[in-house]
Amino acid sequence: MTDKNLFQRRERAFGTGAPTFYDVPLELVRGEGIYLFDSDGNRYVDMYNNVESVGHGNPVVVEAMADQQRRLNVHSRYLHPGPVEFAERLAALHTADVESVVFTCSGSEANEVALQLVRTATGKRGIVCSNATYHGNTEALLQLVHAPHEPAACPEIRAIPFPETYRPLDPDHPGADAYLARLSEAIDSLERAGVGFAGVIFCSIFANEGLPDIPDGFMSRATDMVRAAGGLVIADEVQAGYGRAGTWWGYQSTQLTPDVVVTGKAMGNGLPLAAAAASKSLVDQFRSATHYFNTCAATPLQSAVGMAVLDVIEDEGLIAAASEVGAGLKEALSERRAGRDWIGDVRGRGLFIAVEMVTDSATKQPDRARAVELVNRLKDRGYLTSNAGAYSNVVKIRPPLVLSADQARGFIDAFDDVLDHIDG
Amino acid sequence: MTDKNLFQRRERAFGTGAPTFYDVPLELVRGEGIYLFDSDGNRYVDMYNNVESVGHGNPVVVEAMADQQRRLNVHSRYLHPGPVEFAERLAALHTADVESVVFTCSGSEANEVALQLVRTATGKRGIVCSNATYHGNTEALLQLVHAPHEPAACPEIRAIPFPETYRPLDPDHPGADAYLARLSEAIDSLERAGVGFAGVIFCSIFANEGLPDIPDGFMSRATDMVRAAGGLVIADEVQAGYGRAGTWWGYQSTQLTPDVVVTGKAMGNGLPLAAAAASKSLVDQFRSATHYFNTCAATPLQSAVGMAVLDVIEDEGLIAAASEVGAGLKEALSERRAGRDWIGDVRGRGLFIAVEMVTDSATKQPDRARAVELVNRLKDRGYLTSNAGAYSNVVKIRPPLVLSADQARGFIDAFDDVLDHIDG
Repeated sequence: MTDKNLFQRRERAFGTGAPTFYDVPLELVRGEGIYLFDSDGNRYVDMYNNVESVGHGNPVVVEAMADQQRRLNVHSRYLHPGPVEFAERLAALHTADVESVVFTCSGSEANEVALQLVRTATGKRGIVCSNATYHGNTEALLQLVHAPHEPAACPEIRAIPFPETYRPLDPDHPGADAYLARLSEAIDSLERAGVGFAGVIFCSIFANEGLPDIPDGFMSRATDMVRAAGGLVIADEVQAGYGRAGTWWGYQSTQLTPDVVVTGKAMGNGLPLAAAAASKSLVDQFRSATHYFNTCAATPLQSAVGMAVLDVIEDEGLIAAASEVGAGLKEALSERRAGRDWIGDVRGRGLFIAVEMVTDSATKQPDRARAVELVNRLKDRGYLTSNAGAYSNVVKIRPPLVLSADQARGFIDAFDDVLDHIDG
Repeated sequence: MTDKNLFQRRERAFGTGAPTFYDVPLELVRGEGIYLFDSDGNRYVDMYNNVESVGHGNPVVVEAMADQQRRLNVHSRYLHPGPVEFAERLAALHTADVESVVFTCSGSEANEVALQLVRTATGKRGIVCSNATYHGNTEALLQLVHAPHEPAACPEIRAIPFPETYRPLDPDHPGADAYLARLSEAIDSLERAGVGFAGVIFCSIFANEGLPDIPDGFMSRATDMVRAAGGLVIADEVQAGYGRAGTWWGYQSTQLTPDVVVTGKAMGNGLPLAAAAASKSLVDQFRSATHYFNTCAATPLQSAVGMAVLDVIEDEGLIAAASEVGAGLKEALSERRAGRDWIGDVRGRGLFIAVEMVTDSATKQPDRARAVELVNRLKDRGYLTSNAGAYSNVVKIRPPLVLSADQARGFIDAFDDVLDHIDG
């Protein structure tokens, strides 16, 4: 039974307004694989959580965690083979030039390291980001969120429109050119202002922006432009990485070539664990300038859990599975657009799919209320999603990588039920 | 056997210069209670680590961690009684006005929240800190480290000399007045510059500064001065709290009265877990202004582990024990000053003791090399410490709270052996 006072107690214990999901928040008590169970005994298929990517309560992860915490868990100023081996394994998984790793306890901390790293290496301060992004909750990272709305208060940041084909910046000339022109202007503006240009930070798949289809050539040409201007490219892979997009790293699916790669969320299946990785030469400069230390990062516990997650992904072939199951799911969802003018677009890569709600396909006016309605109705039918995107009008489908094809079909059935209700 | 290539592999995997302890870094393989074991089978008494405060491999913590990770571990936008109950227990342990808690994954993240909280509540940006402090590794927090050396680059920060009786700021008028005058000037300077004064951030026991004996009245008068100027007081309890100083919170041992309390390290016994706590009204303002969310914080895993740590501290009476064993240890170390002009001072509270090395008691010139020598010789005798303080000339003694009186006597015997060698 739900403790009816729990929400009120929570408002006091966390402060009023700590965020919750759904019109009626869900009290969860247990998780197993793809399933979550609430306090009334209802079972849900988790179509949302990218942290518990190898499954809720995964026994390989639980055992690695308990064994290591029992044996030894200390900070990184002693030597231990675990974090070293984990860093080596991560580096070997990259096609970008990544050799050395700075472990942290959160994606925010890792993106902080990435900013400090590119600023140290270039001796410049200016960062270009997208205008509907989120990279973390520190003051330095919140500048990236605030820049589009309060540019004068964020003199070291320039936000450019995120690249997309659905609502092209220049409808008369859709494609990468208009976005690249904005990137070029942003770089020039930072240089002219005396801030200097240190680099760009992009989510490799623009997850918070709503998973746009990216105009052909934007990512590779942006990479070239940044390098030519003396800047560095940060790929935020906190959401995009770890097989989410059907490739090990999101940047491999979008032709971004990063100098710094930031990972988090899925790395620890719930244990706080994140990292910024780059060439040894870049990390050396960062280490030398900052003497960075992070008490609970690069520990035997983080590495034991982190390597258990890698083992599961590799042993169970989860990336190929995510690619295949995700493709089927995306195709099925795309078919639901037929005869429904208000499903504006279906986009995505691997097991990360966005279904965009609009008032009509001509104006493409975002319809947040419709997305919220779908999310709540799907929950009532036992499928957990959420809404997101630049206009919060996107149903965000991002299940653990262990979702089976059968479970995906079950989701489509529930989606059809909800559509029938709305159509009716 | 030690992997002889481990250090070289680590330099590549972490980048050159990732910090290590001791002239010959120690490869640890196992921990149990107060003991740590290296890869050659040697046993050490841990006289340093404040994270594994209830003992290495503590079975109550291991079991709570494994059970919860097996059952459920999800982010905080669902309801779960664990984090709510944990916040309630933490709030109840405070004598300061603390009702609501913002959980994070690291002390850095929690100090970031604290800065954002006081800046949001006051609408001002200026922060006063001490001139030999460390509160975390984000850009905003590193300003507190850089302010004494590059004040022009840190316009929102004023650093004042940390209060101490050993090397008083005004030797002709020792006591709190000289330090309070600096605090007053710093506040005025922030207001005059148009930055405005948001508050102070102090470690409640000035741990990084070298655990100074604080001039009588400084903390309480500083609190009054800050409040009178419309500012808020942040107590950084990441090192000072959780029984370390022989009281639940360091501020209770130094008469600081905080508005915001930041905790970390010992909270999770190795699990990344930290928090900023304050009155509900302050946290409400922060929540409303920032919509703060932290993916791996305020989770069932954090709360299960966090409450297991509280259980052990309470069930085993570790705070009273730390107070008693620490007092004996401090007294014994103080006695070693007799006839040794180069042991300048012995200070501390509870199980946190600083032994300050100087060239001679007249000049009090810091002798870092002597501190480093002691630390390395103590390690060779099976006792792990480190050096720290404003001049890095302090032997820092800060064992897990489970240190017994017998083990403390063993440390004194080893300390005597090292002193004999140096005296000889």
